Amino acid sequence: MILYNGQFVEREEVSIDIEDRGYQFGDGVYEVIRVYQGQCFAMKEHLDRLERSSKEIKLDCPISRMKLEDNINQLIKKDRLTNGIVYLQITRGAAKRTHQFPEHAKSVLTAYTSEMERPLANLQNGINTKLVDDFRWLRCDIKSLNLLGNVLAKQEAQENQCYEAILHRQGTVTEGSSSNVFIVKNGKLYTHPANNFILNGITRQYVLRFAKEEHFEVIENTFSTEELLKADEVFITSTTSEISPVVKIDDQIIGEGRPGIVTAALQKKFEEEINKLVSHVS
Amino acid sequence: MILYNGQFVEREEVSIDIEDRGYQFGDGVYEVIRVYQGQCFAMKEHLDRLERSSKEIKLDCPISRMKLEDNINQLIKKDRLTNGIVYLQITRGAAKRTHQFPEHAKSVLTAYTSEMERPLANLQNGINTKLVDDFRWLRCDIKSLNLLGNVLAKQEAQENQCYEAILHRQGTVTEGSSSNVFIVKNGKLYTHPANNFILNGITRQYVLRFAKEEHFEVIENTFSTEELLKADEVFITSTTSEISPVVKIDDQIIGEGRPGIVTAALQKKFEEEINKLVSHVS
Repeated sequence: MILYNGQFVEREEVSIDIEDRGYQFGDGVYEVIRVYQGQCFAMKEHLDRLERSSKEIKLDCPISRMKLEDNINQLIKKDRLTNGIVYLQITRGAAKRTHQFPEHAKSVLTAYTSEMERPLANLQNGINTKLVDDFRWLRCDIKSLNLLGNVLAKQEAQENQCYEAILHRQGTVTEGSSSNVFIVKNGKLYTHPANNFILNGITRQYVLRFAKEEHFEVIENTFSTEELLKADEVFITSTTSEISPVVKIDDQIIGEGRPGIVTAALQKKFEEEINKLVSHVS
Repeated sequence: MILYNGQFVEREEVSIDIEDRGYQFGDGVYEVIRVYQGQCFAMKEHLDRLERSSKEIKLDCPISRMKLEDNINQLIKKDRLTNGIVYLQITRGAAKRTHQFPEHAKSVLTAYTSEMERPLANLQNGINTKLVDDFRWLRCDIKSLNLLGNVLAKQEAQENQCYEAILHRQGTVTEGSSSNVFIVKNGKLYTHPANNFILNGITRQYVLRFAKEEHFEVIENTFSTEELLKADEVFITSTTSEISPVVKIDDQIIGEGRPGIVTAALQKKFEEEINKLVSHVS
């Protein structure tokens, strides 16, 4: 089923207008929420961020927060989703095309589920990555539908047999094409501060909390591609990639070429978090 | 009628999938072609640019160039359009959502016409503009559907009773939110070079040609917001705005607060170009 402005409809019944501003301008925001054993992980954080993104581009959500939460849970049940994601987006709706906001458009919300297993092989063995120039806009803190820069970076990574692109602005590492990036050096964690250059990932925020709980020092500060390549450990975080160790960047092996101990400790905390969610329910 | 992948269909018959990459990533390119008296203005230049934009993001056009030209002319006839525009976009099509290009998606082309009169009052009296930070991506040379930066800038201008936003990157003027910017100082024209920071407008290119023909010196070089505000004349160019004099920027009156003589000379050349197109036909 598709959640479409508060109704559950079949996919064929959804009618996206050619002048929907999402289609012509990428004028909208989105979220991807992880579902484990039929349960939403971090729904509150995702919907908080959706609200923030919407506010930043002055977009109204067509249904209330409470109704949206209820709709998402219903969608998961209707689709009998066990492990997967809920994809959810809001656009400014359909109106005669003009750059400025239209006066009478009504926001359009679409959401659907998709099955997805946990990336267990990546979590265990690590991933290869490629350094790619970050030429995106300067409001990457908004989770908007303007994703062409991310798309082109990810494509470049995949064409080079890499799972993810690690982006940098003139040598300063920002984030992945659809993830955040952390390095570990001498037991300390470093990650780009949550400003306009990166999306403040939900998994990133969990890792910051886990690090605190485990008494790892975290420095939210920029680091260079050189520091990245010389790190003891590197990992990326995202809703679908969880905490994935990076074992190779371009031709450079990271650390000992396998997941490091700090990364493993954080992964363990993340497992516990999932277990809490799942056991809490059953 | 809507031109939809080489077919002419009613608007309700167009089916945009929720996973069309245009809708989820802004993964596509577009053009707006001006129609005067039923005739396309600069169709060749627009379709050349469409091809270039597509190539830059490795997107295939679903129909041949020759068929597309023919389709556009047919669309204008079917809609009995006299004065207006053809809006045309191509997306990478529908596929299960992943950032990297999907393996089996088929591009989706949609086009439609819209009536629009010439902006005669603006051409004659000039427009008010607002200086706005340019925080868009670094591939503004691609006419892509990632337009949220442009949308937010235009909105800011309109909220301040201005027709257009003039964008600058840390004091260096780039272009308008949907136009190019020229200044005139001591009889010489200045405009941002056609690199990755601006879209190389078709009307911009016409103005460069007109200036040459009229023996005005043109310097394609960056200029600052200070130089902008001190210019003798300022004007913007675009397919729908043509050559619109700028008479005010923020609270600053430009030149003598009315369209300047160089601008007027270029406008006259543009009129001649339209007349050539129209008389050639009738």
